Amino acid sequence: MPFRDTLRSIVESVEGSVGAVIMGYDGIAIDEHVREDCPFDVQILAVEYASVLKEIKKTVDVLKSGELEEVSIATGLCRVIVRAINDEFFIALVMSRDGNYGKGRYLVKREAPVLLEGLQ
Amino acid sequence: MPFRDTLRSIVESVEGSVGAVIMGYDGIAIDEHVREDCPFDVQILAVEYASVLKEIKKTVDVLKSGELEEVSIATGLCRVIVRAINDEFFIALVMSRDGNYGKGRYLVKREAPVLLEGLQ
Repeated sequence: MPFRDTLRSIVESVEGSVGAVIMGYDGIAIDEHVREDCPFDVQILAVEYASVLKEIKKTVDVLKSGELEEVSIATGLCRVIVRAINDEFFIALVMSRDGNYGKGRYLVKREAPVLLEGLQ
Repeated sequence: MPFRDTLRSIVESVEGSVGAVIMGYDGIAIDEHVREDCPFDVQILAVEYASVLKEIKKTVDVLKSGELEEVSIATGLCRVIVRAINDEFFIALVMSRDGNYGKGRYLVKREAPVLLEGLQ
């Protein structure tokens, strides 16, 4: 399945999600799917978060606490779930504050290995 | 209830949790409770995460996506749930990889306003 179809399937399955993107830690996106009525600029959001993720990866390395697997960030307006695909790429799912966080986490975790296969 | 008692109560109620700390974004801890058999240095971990959190706060401000509420970071070895108490302080709960994440999130969210009252 092409990346965009996987992203669309995640976004359409998770209540309250507005967009998903596969991106490198350098902030360059491979693909994305964004709902038409999305109130956020998912690409800009992911680019900003990519640089934060690089910092988190460094910290996790310093602490020797294993590989970075997942980061989630909740703010007053939205929730972002980021899952590492490999050392270079991650998938980010953006949802509204009251989105189905549990289902989002589950699907992003389930699809990360599938996306990894597509990247190899 | 003194801060340490609240922290102890959280750590003892959440299966797989190893320690909790109240800390400023400047990396200075107010109080902590750590299980005796804790395999991590919770203070060092929180100090390192505090600087990452400052970056996340900046990003969240840039994106105008509301106040930062919660960050969770999962690695191969552990899971850290960070909840903002106010603009200066946060509470971090550290647990093993298979700890009860849902209960941890719930209790940290429930106790944050209680801790805030104690700080005022």
